[in-house]
Amino acid sequence: MKTIYEGKTKDIRQEDGKTYFYFKDDVTGKDGVFDPGENQVGLSIEGSGRACIAMSKYFFEKFEADKIPTHYISADVDNRLMEIKPAKVFGKGLEVICRFKATGSFIRRYGKYAKDGDDLNRYVEFTLKDDERQDPLINEDALVLLGILKEGEYDRIKELTRSISQVIYDDLKARGLEMYDIKLEFGRLEGSDEVVLIDEVSGGNMRVYKGDEYIEPLRLSEMIVGK
Amino acid sequence: MKTIYEGKTKDIRQEDGKTYFYFKDDVTGKDGVFDPGENQVGLSIEGSGRACIAMSKYFFEKFEADKIPTHYISADVDNRLMEIKPAKVFGKGLEVICRFKATGSFIRRYGKYAKDGDDLNRYVEFTLKDDERQDPLINEDALVLLGILKEGEYDRIKELTRSISQVIYDDLKARGLEMYDIKLEFGRLEGSDEVVLIDEVSGGNMRVYKGDEYIEPLRLSEMIVGK
Repeated sequence: MKTIYEGKTKDIRQEDGKTYFYFKDDVTGKDGVFDPGENQVGLSIEGSGRACIAMSKYFFEKFEADKIPTHYISADVDNRLMEIKPAKVFGKGLEVICRFKATGSFIRRYGKYAKDGDDLNRYVEFTLKDDERQDPLINEDALVLLGILKEGEYDRIKELTRSISQVIYDDLKARGLEMYDIKLEFGRLEGSDEVVLIDEVSGGNMRVYKGDEYIEPLRLSEMIVGK
Repeated sequence: MKTIYEGKTKDIRQEDGKTYFYFKDDVTGKDGVFDPGENQVGLSIEGSGRACIAMSKYFFEKFEADKIPTHYISADVDNRLMEIKPAKVFGKGLEVICRFKATGSFIRRYGKYAKDGDDLNRYVEFTLKDDERQDPLINEDALVLLGILKEGEYDRIKELTRSISQVIYDDLKARGLEMYDIKLEFGRLEGSDEVVLIDEVSGGNMRVYKGDEYIEPLRLSEMIVGK
């Protein structure tokens, strides 16, 4: 296999015309503390790669059953390899956040109007992946103006984000867990330009609580797919 | 006259059932330097109140001729009093920015995709007035979710912003000046809830250049309405 891209937590590999994510045991964080919101690789945790691919496999197969378009083909958890359909990210990378309850950057921005835990009814917002500029918020007009999205893609991505987030929310709810927010990534499939969910869906993408207790990503993965 | 509100650069006064802005000679700035982007009152400049009301009168009367709805009734420049129709701001205050060319916070946010001076084709964005949180950007869904705008008001305000900004842009263009961006405020008229342009329209609201030279607000006012 040939590594064609080295990422912070995953590499992209190719072999025989097929494309794969290889999940590494590196996680983002700062000062030795795991923090999915951080943009730097902070430390290695044995088993974190396996946890991420196992949880991603679980959810991508759920989306498949629900006919939600994604880049997922299959996953080999033991070898930490996920086969994916090649897709292009929007611009230099776009993140889409779905919020069920107010917390984090929503409060930092809109604390004059909302408090922690307020119901946000699956509010969706878009941010640019840009470490240097702290992943700035961006509206539909700017996304189109800067050539990042085409007309109509904003609403399509918003609709997909709500459906996907609801599937995950309901799954966690049935386990007595509550998801406050989740961060997703989308891209255009090579060839067709169809908008699909890309990247991974693991503990690091979401903020989940059991009552007042925050469930950290690896523990969440354990609760869903075991060790 | 009774002062019912004391603002940074203007007071609101009432007499005989009529409402007025009283333009003060205070301007926002920092360390003794006039900076319309600053949120603190920095210094007093003799004649600044008169310059602001004279320029506002000039533009509000232009908008009136163009049938653009505003809160303006009349202005007494010598006494620095502008009679206005009472209106309510959106939420705790909302600012609407129209950008013809990229500069300032647009570049600070989207510098990965745009450079200073890029054409932005009257792109419109909304920010909350919130000194403590550096006037955060906000999208349509959040404005509706937080009860700041009602359905439909976002598009109405965007359309008004583009028309108003174009009137000002064209006026300045005819004088050999180029407006890069402008910040406007809107509100709902008391009684009817009609969306109208409120506040003032003066040099501090806009970034104007003559070639490569930035024209500071008081000089701009002088170029338009004289001393």
